[in-house]
Amino acid sequence: MIRFSVMTLFPEMIEAGVNVSILARAAANHLLDIRAVNIRDYTDNKHGRVDDYTYGGGAGMLMQAQPIYDCYQALVNEQPADRVIYLTPQGRTFDQEMACELAGEKHVVFLCGHYEGVDERVLEAIVTDYVSIGDYVLTGGELPAMVMIDAISRHIPGVLHNEDSTDAESFSDGLLEYPQYTRPEEWMGKKVPEILLSGDHAKVDVWRHNESLKRTKSRRPDLYDAYISLHPEETFQ
Amino acid sequence: MIRFSVMTLFPEMIEAGVNVSILARAAANHLLDIRAVNIRDYTDNKHGRVDDYTYGGGAGMLMQAQPIYDCYQALVNEQPADRVIYLTPQGRTFDQEMACELAGEKHVVFLCGHYEGVDERVLEAIVTDYVSIGDYVLTGGELPAMVMIDAISRHIPGVLHNEDSTDAESFSDGLLEYPQYTRPEEWMGKKVPEILLSGDHAKVDVWRHNESLKRTKSRRPDLYDAYISLHPEETFQ
Repeated sequence: MIRFSVMTLFPEMIEAGVNVSILARAAANHLLDIRAVNIRDYTDNKHGRVDDYTYGGGAGMLMQAQPIYDCYQALVNEQPADRVIYLTPQGRTFDQEMACELAGEKHVVFLCGHYEGVDERVLEAIVTDYVSIGDYVLTGGELPAMVMIDAISRHIPGVLHNEDSTDAESFSDGLLEYPQYTRPEEWMGKKVPEILLSGDHAKVDVWRHNESLKRTKSRRPDLYDAYISLHPEETFQ
Repeated sequence: MIRFSVMTLFPEMIEAGVNVSILARAAANHLLDIRAVNIRDYTDNKHGRVDDYTYGGGAGMLMQAQPIYDCYQALVNEQPADRVIYLTPQGRTFDQEMACELAGEKHVVFLCGHYEGVDERVLEAIVTDYVSIGDYVLTGGELPAMVMIDAISRHIPGVLHNEDSTDAESFSDGLLEYPQYTRPEEWMGKKVPEILLSGDHAKVDVWRHNESLKRTKSRRPDLYDAYISLHPEETFQ
């Protein structure tokens, strides 16, 4: 079983985000364990403060080392951490490959920053990976931690049932997904393409593959070119 | 005021995610309005179903057109939508520039898919933008919608106070942030760099800029090269 521990100032945000859908089912089935731990519970400050001004000046407040470090110690005393990930727009960009790699760990700890950032000394002391989920700035590390937990969990054997898994697989062949249709056959004057009602699975497969090629060529020419260089016989007219 | 409407099967996830920190403050200050609307409330199906099998075969279930379309109609009857964004790993990749652009709209609607996807016909009927937050597969569109709302909101005048804003600004000069320190001066034998205690603001600025260059060169040589090509006089040894 993999454990995800999230060190945060907003544990209720994490709890609401991971207690739904596939993640909730996987936790119920003991395939994973997600814990949100409130950094504020570990501060030595009698007023419950966890932040202070920045040395050398600057507008914002910084999260202090002590509460984070003591929170971290409490987590690893229970179970050693394989990875400690600090979410920052300046980290290595998260992708499907990293998700797959992290799914092989036993205990992944996330540190969610807030305010202007975190005292450098505690980052040096505990962090193994600086990770960004994309080229944009967010208010805190909570949403990125949840995004990573979701994407990682989908690579853990048993988490996805058959009905969940095809999307990921389709993406992994390097082409965009073909259009899909469900009931009714006609909706607002728009009909489901005949071929999908034919029952001819071979023809359906060919149609879907062509639609994937067509869509990839128009929306993501970069992916299309990469695919065609591997499958030159398939050039789509 | 900008309105964000999120069409979802898990409204409680959205509500928990956006009711904290800077977003909660901005909503209280009437700078933005975030609504999570349950697609299931709009289904014609007497058992409350919103999904069905895929025409042509395939393992998963697909979200049906009708509940989504009627949910959308209810939203736009109240206020027309400037953009209707479908979250999909196959969309255009979200970035800081798109966040800034979307911050100029009045009503941004997000459609969060689940299961295997959404009937193509309703996507054609309502969606203006297909957007991905990164190169990884997630279970649903809820986390990406929250990520986008957070990043977009930070570009709305008045949402960020002084103390929140420097991180984004620092990132936007193209260099990684310098290390930051707060109290105490010494923690676990590690001292704050002398210069930050000197009170000499000019020297502090030089030190910080050099640390930014050093860190960018080692962690993100791509950003470093881009910066140096614009500022050749600053080459860091």
